[in-house]
Amino acid sequence: MIFEFEKKVRFGEIDEAGIVYFPRFFNFYHLAMEEFFEQVVGVPYAEVIKKWKVGFPTVHVETDFFRPVVYGDVLVIAMTFPKLGHSSVRMRYRTRRKSDDSAMADAQLTTACVDMTTFRARKIPENLREIFERYASDEPPSGEELVVR
Amino acid sequence: MIFEFEKKVRFGEIDEAGIVYFPRFFNFYHLAMEEFFEQVVGVPYAEVIKKWKVGFPTVHVETDFFRPVVYGDVLVIAMTFPKLGHSSVRMRYRTRRKSDDSAMADAQLTTACVDMTTFRARKIPENLREIFERYASDEPPSGEELVVR
Amino acid sequence: MIFEFEKKVRFGEIDEAGIVYFPRFFNFYHLAMEEFFEQVVGVPYAEVIKKWKVGFPTVHVETDFFRPVVYGDVLVIAMTFPKLGHSSVRMRYRTRRKSDDSAMADAQLTTACVDMTTFRARKIPENLREIFERYASDEPPSGEELVVR
Amino acid sequence: MIFEFEKKVRFGEIDEAGIVYFPRFFNFYHLAMEEFFEQVVGVPYAEVIKKWKVGFPTVHVETDFFRPVVYGDVLVIAMTFPKLGHSSVRMRYRTRRKSDDSAMADAQLTTACVDMTTFRARKIPENLREIFERYASDEPPSGEELVVR
Repeated sequence: MIFEFEKKVRFGEIDEAGIVYFPRFFNFYHLAMEEFFEQVVGVPYAEVIKKWKVGFPTVHVETDFFRPVVYGDVLVIAMTFPKLGHSSVRMRYRTRRKSDDSAMADAQLTTACVDMTTFRARKIPENLREIFERYASDEPPSGEELVVR
Repeated sequence: MIFEFEKKVRFGEIDEAGIVYFPRFFNFYHLAMEEFFEQVVGVPYAEVIKKWKVGFPTVHVETDFFRPVVYGDVLVIAMTFPKLGHSSVRMRYRTRRKSDDSAMADAQLTTACVDMTTFRARKIPENLREIFERYASDEPPSGEELVVR
Repeated sequence: MIFEFEKKVRFGEIDEAGIVYFPRFFNFYHLAMEEFFEQVVGVPYAEVIKKWKVGFPTVHVETDFFRPVVYGDVLVIAMTFPKLGHSSVRMRYRTRRKSDDSAMADAQLTTACVDMTTFRARKIPENLREIFERYASDEPPSGEELVVR
Repeated sequence: MIFEFEKKVRFGEIDEAGIVYFPRFFNFYHLAMEEFFEQVVGVPYAEVIKKWKVGFPTVHVETDFFRPVVYGDVLVIAMTFPKLGHSSVRMRYRTRRKSDDSAMADAQLTTACVDMTTFRARKIPENLREIFERYASDEPPSGEELVVR
């Protein structure tokens, strides 16, 4: 299974070069994760953080940007969970342009599962692990394939 | 006395129209306030918030934007404290372009002095009031004058 | 008529004080305006800017913030157009919390209608004026009423 | 040679978890690059973009985040250029906390040198290549070393 999040590019997300300022992509990925919790897990991330005291800070990032994204573009961010460790979760965000399915970016963000009171690594809660596992399966055969898609 | 804060306009602060996205001006004003605490009060705002448990959230804003600001501009933000109440502080930020002294914006932000543990209004600490008062005096005779300055 | 825009508060919009960093409210208002063009005018603001060469930069801001907004809050921003000039449009954004209808903020932003090729004021296009006028009517009797609502 | 850029963490850069929202690190790196052009090349990046019509959009990112960064921290970002291609430049940003020299993050951003009028790859201008080469030398023996430094 794949979770898809649609993101309209906004006026204030453009930079001097007339394209999306690249740091904002990492904000887009975080929005996708917030929506994953709300829509798939059924619990807003605000509650995960505040009541469960569990969070997923990013510890490692690998990203390819394939094409510039401009104002007026609508992006579809396909989120999967290709790798689960004891206390780490790799989240993948493949971004395409909605109008023509062009691949725009591909990102893998490794997050640590932490206890929000101590900020120390902890075991992924079992109910979350089961949900993440259902979204683990869609590895494409190779990275290059993405570029030509 | 007037506190001046110099702000270079950055690549990522520009919007689709090729000018500074106007919400970012309010970030510039906050940066000026943070620098005021660090340079004039002699205590980083981080410490005011975390150790003194005192904060200044904004409750009212009035701003005029006179001219568009572009990438490459350097702004000089002149900060004063035109009005002090028991638990409120009005901060004024007059922004000019460094290269030619053109007036770019004029903002008055009313902040509440709050106890950061309860988020309730509290008396302005006496040592801060004394410092703010020293920067209270530069009201120009009229609003229009600003535009032509 | 009133245009309503729903905005979920996001993880990255919170500041050191644990509330929405106030400059982001002005981004929220811009998002509401972008959605107004897309949903009500039927033309994405990207197209208004790029094809019509018409834009609405903000020239004057007045805002009251009534209560702090926290992560997990969903805001409803009610947008109206209380005043139309030859080449200026005042847009009002009254923000309430969805869960309990508490008034959170009230903002009036005066924008100039400009030709995007010259950045000079121009007459509001007639088709836009007619639409804006339909959203002009909801002035509440007084400002204070908002706070107690 | 290494170019060092000092960055104070700001009130509005903190997120719900009380630490710097990780997408903002990529903004910090861009600020460092802008300062490199201004201070080392001697030409503001605004001029490189607007007059030279040359830009360096990011096409690939690899980053490790070692420790959370909080409000009040001052960061020192050490920038080098470990790899130069015909039309690509890899920029490295190693970030430490000023107060105790703790390693906070290590990022390698591959940028493409593009003609800003066509957004196509172009040869790195010779004068820039010579400058970048002077900052190419500081590869530490291994990645792990960074963490313990």
